[in-house]
Amino acid sequence: MQKYVVGVDLGGTKISTALSDLNGEVICQTTVPTNAQEGEIPVLNRIIESVEKVIKDGSVAYEDIKGIGIGSPGPLDAEKGTIIYTPNLPFKNFNLVEPLNKKFGVPVFLDNDANVAAIGEYMFGAGKGAKDVVFFTVSTGVGGGAILNGKVYRGHTSNALEIGHMTVAPDGPRCNCGNIGCVEATSSGTAIAKRGQEALNSKVETSLRKYETVTSYEVFKEAAEGDPVCIDIVNTALNYLGIAIANSVAIFDPEVIIIGGGVSKVGDIVFDTVRKVVDKRCFKSMAESVKIVPAGLGTDAGVVGAVALALLETEDK
Amino acid sequence: MQKYVVGVDLGGTKISTALSDLNGEVICQTTVPTNAQEGEIPVLNRIIESVEKVIKDGSVAYEDIKGIGIGSPGPLDAEKGTIIYTPNLPFKNFNLVEPLNKKFGVPVFLDNDANVAAIGEYMFGAGKGAKDVVFFTVSTGVGGGAILNGKVYRGHTSNALEIGHMTVAPDGPRCNCGNIGCVEATSSGTAIAKRGQEALNSKVETSLRKYETVTSYEVFKEAAEGDPVCIDIVNTALNYLGIAIANSVAIFDPEVIIIGGGVSKVGDIVFDTVRKVVDKRCFKSMAESVKIVPAGLGTDAGVVGAVALALLETEDK
Repeated sequence: MQKYVVGVDLGGTKISTALSDLNGEVICQTTVPTNAQEGEIPVLNRIIESVEKVIKDGSVAYEDIKGIGIGSPGPLDAEKGTIIYTPNLPFKNFNLVEPLNKKFGVPVFLDNDANVAAIGEYMFGAGKGAKDVVFFTVSTGVGGGAILNGKVYRGHTSNALEIGHMTVAPDGPRCNCGNIGCVEATSSGTAIAKRGQEALNSKVETSLRKYETVTSYEVFKEAAEGDPVCIDIVNTALNYLGIAIANSVAIFDPEVIIIGGGVSKVGDIVFDTVRKVVDKRCFKSMAESVKIVPAGLGTDAGVVGAVALALLETEDK
Repeated sequence: MQKYVVGVDLGGTKISTALSDLNGEVICQTTVPTNAQEGEIPVLNRIIESVEKVIKDGSVAYEDIKGIGIGSPGPLDAEKGTIIYTPNLPFKNFNLVEPLNKKFGVPVFLDNDANVAAIGEYMFGAGKGAKDVVFFTVSTGVGGGAILNGKVYRGHTSNALEIGHMTVAPDGPRCNCGNIGCVEATSSGTAIAKRGQEALNSKVETSLRKYETVTSYEVFKEAAEGDPVCIDIVNTALNYLGIAIANSVAIFDPEVIIIGGGVSKVGDIVFDTVRKVVDKRCFKSMAESVKIVPAGLGTDAGVVGAVALALLETEDK
């Protein structure tokens, strides 16, 4: 009886692996360092050993495993199961699915971090019970994923939901991608920190001057304390994030929009500002119908998402 | 043997109805005036009579009909089969699906103009053979539809793909919807005409002054003749349309984007400008992979789309 799945959260510093039942209940879990500098094969072996370990720890036979889900930074080709390239992992055009499939004889699924987080939220987090869910993650960068009609939407080249690179400020700041005015360039943690540093480099009076280094944390903190420069930076950033989310409402008419990532953890000011922009810019019926909520999964989101990927992809099978 | 479907294109001035085989070959067709002023029941009866007529003209039995598709202006509720309200038709919260279903004993499907046009293009037009298709119609307004993973994507409240109301110019012109800077307010035929009229009301020198009335047609014509004011209006409008389409590429990573509607018929300048913006603003792999093409269906697009709706919704049934 196939009563279990395995989820692997592959990161630049650690690999977290969990055995779960078909309800997403984690039975056992292991975390090991990635040691990416050792190269492709040692890291691959560490993934295989981790999967073996949780299966053994759970006293489960290989035949009991319905599938394995792997979440990894991208870009990757989910259909082929190949990691194309990623800065913090050794894999280059490396098919990660085949060796695991060969070793364990079960279906193996690979998807990028943002899609895996979206699936996790859809199945076990803030999107539970909804049919159409759009997930934004706002931290160093801005990314996302969407579950539409109960399926992950990946697009023609596996790059759908590059929502961080939606243009929201046609004459705005330049983005790392080369484009101008992407929401990643206006509203990511990095962008907010950069605006703070620019303020320091100018002659304006701001309470940021008391810090040696300024990240988005200090900008949000000083905004909350009433510093007008920081209030302006935060309002501008969140207004553009609101536009990106309002555009997603107009496009997807989703049941739920989930915001995760470091910036979302700042709390009410983020959700209140975004909600105001959505109410102002969207059709009333759609604005009223869409829920805009923080991510529901905690620190285990990566591995729970990988479990959810395996469950979603093997559903009805 | 269910070898036929019927498509009904319900418009404010006429009702076009076609009997088609399962390959979308139209066997016979009839067009009658809507006479909307006569009210709900007479118009409903005219729809029923039109369906009866094409079935009779095609010498087909009711049992041979697999389904009926109806395209109508919205807003409507596709799931319930109800037209909520539309300015040029008598129906108010009127269920159009039930009486036809009762009369003909076959599944009946209702969808809005833009979705029906998208389905038509997906099955028989410029999107034929593609899996993920996004359709923009740019004329008086800007609307659209999307076929994702081979299915119409409708969203939670049946309002998905309100792409005309994507914000592309946060400080731009006010839209009829109340929002500021929607692509409908920057790039529709109405918006282009309005910019032309604004130029006339100002003191600038423009060759538009020779016309008694200025629509988008005259603005495009004088731009092609070299009038700098019109060139600027056209470039600005198409640049914002390009941003909306680039955002759709970042979001959907589609195989094909189809542009239909009056503005698309202006030709190369529209497609060249949009392509330039997409190449500038999108990730290289996605920009290179996406085809941006004019709509492939002609004057019969409405009824062919309605046929396609019936075919798509009864597929594998």
